[in-house]
Amino acid sequence: MKLPRLHTLQEIAGIVQCSYAGADDFPITGINEIHQVEQGDIVFVDHPKYYDKALQCAASVIIINKQVDCPEGKALIFSEDPFSTYNQLTKHFSPWALPLENRGHNVIVGKNCIIHPTVVMGNNVTIGDNCIIHPGVVFYNDITLGNDVIVHANCVIGSEAFYYKNRPEGREKMHTVGTVIIEEHVEIGAACTIDRGVSGPTFIGARTKIDNHVHVGHDTVIGKKCLFAAQVGIAGCVKIEDEVILWGQVGVPSDIHIGKGAVVLGQSGITKDLEGGKTYFGSPAEEARSKFRELALIRKLPKAIETLGL
Amino acid sequence: MKLPRLHTLQEIAGIVQCSYAGADDFPITGINEIHQVEQGDIVFVDHPKYYDKALQCAASVIIINKQVDCPEGKALIFSEDPFSTYNQLTKHFSPWALPLENRGHNVIVGKNCIIHPTVVMGNNVTIGDNCIIHPGVVFYNDITLGNDVIVHANCVIGSEAFYYKNRPEGREKMHTVGTVIIEEHVEIGAACTIDRGVSGPTFIGARTKIDNHVHVGHDTVIGKKCLFAAQVGIAGCVKIEDEVILWGQVGVPSDIHIGKGAVVLGQSGITKDLEGGKTYFGSPAEEARSKFRELALIRKLPKAIETLGL
Amino acid sequence: MKLPRLHTLQEIAGIVQCSYAGADDFPITGINEIHQVEQGDIVFVDHPKYYDKALQCAASVIIINKQVDCPEGKALIFSEDPFSTYNQLTKHFSPWALPLENRGHNVIVGKNCIIHPTVVMGNNVTIGDNCIIHPGVVFYNDITLGNDVIVHANCVIGSEAFYYKNRPEGREKMHTVGTVIIEEHVEIGAACTIDRGVSGPTFIGARTKIDNHVHVGHDTVIGKKCLFAAQVGIAGCVKIEDEVILWGQVGVPSDIHIGKGAVVLGQSGITKDLEGGKTYFGSPAEEARSKFRELALIRKLPKAIETLGL
Repeated sequence: MKLPRLHTLQEIAGIVQCSYAGADDFPITGINEIHQVEQGDIVFVDHPKYYDKALQCAASVIIINKQVDCPEGKALIFSEDPFSTYNQLTKHFSPWALPLENRGHNVIVGKNCIIHPTVVMGNNVTIGDNCIIHPGVVFYNDITLGNDVIVHANCVIGSEAFYYKNRPEGREKMHTVGTVIIEEHVEIGAACTIDRGVSGPTFIGARTKIDNHVHVGHDTVIGKKCLFAAQVGIAGCVKIEDEVILWGQVGVPSDIHIGKGAVVLGQSGITKDLEGGKTYFGSPAEEARSKFRELALIRKLPKAIETLGL
Repeated sequence: MKLPRLHTLQEIAGIVQCSYAGADDFPITGINEIHQVEQGDIVFVDHPKYYDKALQCAASVIIINKQVDCPEGKALIFSEDPFSTYNQLTKHFSPWALPLENRGHNVIVGKNCIIHPTVVMGNNVTIGDNCIIHPGVVFYNDITLGNDVIVHANCVIGSEAFYYKNRPEGREKMHTVGTVIIEEHVEIGAACTIDRGVSGPTFIGARTKIDNHVHVGHDTVIGKKCLFAAQVGIAGCVKIEDEVILWGQVGVPSDIHIGKGAVVLGQSGITKDLEGGKTYFGSPAEEARSKFRELALIRKLPKAIETLGL
Repeated sequence: MKLPRLHTLQEIAGIVQCSYAGADDFPITGINEIHQVEQGDIVFVDHPKYYDKALQCAASVIIINKQVDCPEGKALIFSEDPFSTYNQLTKHFSPWALPLENRGHNVIVGKNCIIHPTVVMGNNVTIGDNCIIHPGVVFYNDITLGNDVIVHANCVIGSEAFYYKNRPEGREKMHTVGTVIIEEHVEIGAACTIDRGVSGPTFIGARTKIDNHVHVGHDTVIGKKCLFAAQVGIAGCVKIEDEVILWGQVGVPSDIHIGKGAVVLGQSGITKDLEGGKTYFGSPAEEARSKFRELALIRKLPKAIETLGL
């Protein structure tokens, strides 16, 4: 998320009551998760395994639970619990507020739209021209739809990230402040759920078509002209390139990358990055040709076991 | 779909501005996809592979992108893009119109029904006697329910077919003008989606019981007394006979036929037609007995590989 | 379910017009399914296979379709069709009634809750303090939420059990009279469905976190601090202990027991009870280590089949 105006390091550290390393007037423009950071952003890190990654990433300010040297051109905020400090900041700048009306603040609807009166829209929802939004659809806050988008009945667009920090007393929720961006000519089937990004966007590229009961997790980026059949489940932080086809009930875990034009057959479960231009099958998914060969060989097993006298 | 009155070939060709072969007053009574056609119907074909099938099917008028001889007793409409011409006709006779109220035109509700005020009904919705429709259910247009039907909360009945023509610039949507017909004593669990047929009905036979989160695609025909557990996904154009049981999370791709009384165990993925009266398991699904035997043999693999010194 | 006041055997037998064995004033306090019974309860049994189990269970009164000797300290009600007699009783004491307003009778909401006006609540719904209920959520009757519970948009909490008795003329519905109890700090993702118990509670323990599109069946008991990813399906009468993690699209059939801290990897299908503290994978699910070893061995199959000359 971008801050509403430029803030200084001193101001930000004051909000969370933390000490810091860097000039008082060091400029800060945003707050983001490490997957999404750019210059001017604050990021957090709380595990030694990820210290170097965080200190070297594009972010300008790192909230960290260790007294380390400040990298050139950056600033540090010291916190015993960087996750909480980060959550405190995002809550400060984007306090959660479900509007209790059917239309929140700053809802902008384009020309020639058909939006059923039962549709609920949170704050900061922008709908392009010629969109059709069917009954029972719920938009949370901070959603943008391009032109000619169709959203079918009872979809939920912009629900919160399934993202928790494990604590001894139970899981602590990451405060969701990201967005959903859906480009032009996308169609989303009935009863789908598209979660918002944690701090950046969940993104669906132009002319992608999605069938019923599909789930798309937080911060996932989907290319153009993709086709996802019913009951596909895509976790958070997935990157799917253009023209990918996922057939029914395919499952994609988090942090996976699927190359352009890949086709994944029904019920497949992906466990590693997939190269584009190929067809995959199975759970775990492999290239379909080798998977089908394997299935044919398994049919020879009775004979093999008999031959071996096992 | 049936036309509101008999039309002549000349009238229809005039609507889409196409040349034709056949008598000016050749009678036309409907428009249908090739899976659903009967005498008097218009059908379309745009691929040489399917020319013969379309010219010989039950339809009386074929929209075609080649100058072929007109079969005896039929008529032809010539179009460079039969898919678009067909869509143009269905849009002409059934322009999409989501009513912006909670009750559309021509809604007929039987005796002793309990219908929650949050239920949304499109145009041409007929509900039998003694039906219970729970909160948040959305009926699109052209839905018929028999007597004693129960539909649980947040279901979507009659959403549009997931059916696109692939074009260089992206997928073009097939205009949905079909119906959903649900017979008596059917119960549909919470958050299910039943799509309308493209031009004919999606059909659910009497006394079939469906659990939560089940998806049924366009033009699928389901028999009587079936039982589908939660999260089953059934694609379009599937034919399921009476008394079939699909356990949880089973997936059925399009154009599959499942025989009477077949039982498919949980998470199975069907890839070919299934004979009735048998039990199936696996993804791809096979007869359960042979699949279980195969699984038992796989457990002997370590010994086999060791024996072979591999 | 508990009866609104203590009833006598004579009163109860009078309601269902059945003969009985036991003192006229034998005290009855509840009606429950065999999974849930305690002293004072009525239970039913209609199959010789389960006669002994029912006669020896904790229930005090057994509705049975055979003239057997009455066990010491218990009572019997004789019926040719115990399922119908049982349903007749539950309907008598808890006649189904979907309130036709957005708030039913006896709705109690705690302090500092944010409940969207589109939320529908049946009768006897109790919401704790600091709860957030997003748009489009439907609560059926008899639901209790602890403090600090979040329910995301378009969830259905308390739908009816998918439980039928097979009859020659079709399946007869078990009348649902149970409850849902959700403890404090539970979060439930968008478009989830949690069915009520048949006569007792469906239970979700404190601090359990559930992602989108998850289904939980009737009478299932889920422990504390569990984590269920998107599209997990859990059938009825399942017992899941504390701190269990089920990754995306996992399926759990009815009557399964999963031990504390078990982890089940994505798309796994459980077929037997799972010991706690271990990681499982596959459909059917096995311990992940042995399943991965098996998958590695299968990759050696081509070589093995070649070696054997098959």
